[in-house]
Amino acid sequence: MSSRHPFAKVAVVGAGLIGGSVARRLHGAGLDVVVVDPDPQTRAGAAAAGLAVAASLGEVGADRDLVVVATPLDALPAVLAECALAAPGAVVVDVGSVKVAAARAADAAGLAGRYVGAHPMAGTEQSGFAHSFADLLVGVRWAVVRGDGPVADVVRFVVDAFAATAVVLDAAEHDRAVALVSHAPHVLANALLELTGRGGEPSAAHLAAGSFGDGTRVAGRNAERTRNMLADNAEALAGVLEDLGELIAAYRAELGDPAVLGARLQSVVDGAAAVRRPSADWRPCDDLDDVLASTGPVLIRRVEDRLEWAPVDR
Amino acid sequence: MSSRHPFAKVAVVGAGLIGGSVARRLHGAGLDVVVVDPDPQTRAGAAAAGLAVAASLGEVGADRDLVVVATPLDALPAVLAECALAAPGAVVVDVGSVKVAAARAADAAGLAGRYVGAHPMAGTEQSGFAHSFADLLVGVRWAVVRGDGPVADVVRFVVDAFAATAVVLDAAEHDRAVALVSHAPHVLANALLELTGRGGEPSAAHLAAGSFGDGTRVAGRNAERTRNMLADNAEALAGVLEDLGELIAAYRAELGDPAVLGARLQSVVDGAAAVRRPSADWRPCDDLDDVLASTGPVLIRRVEDRLEWAPVDR
Repeated sequence: MSSRHPFAKVAVVGAGLIGGSVARRLHGAGLDVVVVDPDPQTRAGAAAAGLAVAASLGEVGADRDLVVVATPLDALPAVLAECALAAPGAVVVDVGSVKVAAARAADAAGLAGRYVGAHPMAGTEQSGFAHSFADLLVGVRWAVVRGDGPVADVVRFVVDAFAATAVVLDAAEHDRAVALVSHAPHVLANALLELTGRGGEPSAAHLAAGSFGDGTRVAGRNAERTRNMLADNAEALAGVLEDLGELIAAYRAELGDPAVLGARLQSVVDGAAAVRRPSADWRPCDDLDDVLASTGPVLIRRVEDRLEWAPVDR
Repeated sequence: MSSRHPFAKVAVVGAGLIGGSVARRLHGAGLDVVVVDPDPQTRAGAAAAGLAVAASLGEVGADRDLVVVATPLDALPAVLAECALAAPGAVVVDVGSVKVAAARAADAAGLAGRYVGAHPMAGTEQSGFAHSFADLLVGVRWAVVRGDGPVADVVRFVVDAFAATAVVLDAAEHDRAVALVSHAPHVLANALLELTGRGGEPSAAHLAAGSFGDGTRVAGRNAERTRNMLADNAEALAGVLEDLGELIAAYRAELGDPAVLGARLQSVVDGAAAVRRPSADWRPCDDLDDVLASTGPVLIRRVEDRLEWAPVDR
């Protein structure tokens, strides 16, 4: 088995911020890339950026060996069904932010054996092809979800084509993890901005500074995208929000007991480095299939011409 | 009455991040500044930065016309009592982050008529004189609290010496506003970092990216300072945390009703600009005392040689 990914002819379906950035990167790396988007303006923008374009996968899917799907989750069932028909020889990878529902849609579309879920952990406050750029998803963490598709090939693809560190894990685990580190922060930020916007304290906005700016950075933007992201991961996110609600109530109760509050805050300080800079015990990855067959989450990266892996500590 | 502040001989008590930055700025502006700090190392650092130093206000307070107190709130009663004795001719301004308790301490210390509470809305993740710098508090919002002291002189002081926009308001209103835009963000950030650090989702830290970094920036640092800030403002903060808990529960409930969730998120988008960039209807301020006599919060700034004011919309 080659140590490099096997994909040469790629279709990217949905050329928004993420799909556009995927297409630009792969095109720049010399792959044969065609962008599929139903929106004429989006296609015009992609064509102006030097990309081949098509209005539907039916026009271009027959010879593709990889289809990257970057549409909203609510379009996934239809798009994946189209992949099954129009790209019969392709591995299909979707790059959305929730993976249990995506895997279910892939099964329903009849993509068993050739679907792999992925999720690049990057983005901007913008959306649309016009804001996409080739480096957006480069050098970041990419979640790759275990399943019955060619996971090893997709791991090699994100590691090679995006210089990614792949985080390989189960779909449910992915959804719980991103509920915690991505979706919950969006809820907290919006709740804080919403409460301040109610205007009960009219001076508050005039006094807002660093901690408010940081804490609300991702809020109050792109309501539809945020709604989809949160609602699509409702089950996992509800659990995280319940936990956060309990924690915030605990902080509130401890305001009157500074010693207890101080001990809690010190424990957060003590644990901060392990969260912000999680360690990894990197080892040579001589047999990727073997490493991927383990049950726990693992990290994969390329260092020069060799793959390395590390277990994620449980 | 001069349009410029009347202070020439200043003592800064407590030369940490904030006090040190105040002292550096005033010294650089040509004022006669002496730094008072009980810690020999802090005094040595201040002296190396070219500042006059003293171990106690008793040594230097007699001729001061302004004392800026930048000590933690739990030291305020003792420091303000020392101000009353050792700096009998000085206006006393404290720059801590809660103002109701500070005003109470000033009253108890016998500073009626010559105490004014203030609060510059800036800081860094660092602490201590070594991290202070002259520009830290320049060009930012400074809350100045109404009371029986010379509020107009202190407004002129922060506007002139720090190129500040002063936000003049009542102590209780200040404490509620900063609970919302400063203290609550610290609780949310710490709660999110704490929950992630529990390790129930070991992949989470490896998948954390922008929204998590933004949402936890101020967390997991300086437990003692954070504890003091939160606990000192317990009453106002408890109310804000209760409101946030209810809001987070509402988001959670609406995860299953995307139309309602989407409408809520859109309303946050619609209101975001007014919170992030609150408008102000600036007018000439010909009589500062008159403007300050109004009951609502007001903004004051200097444009070239003239003061301007704006009401804070209620």
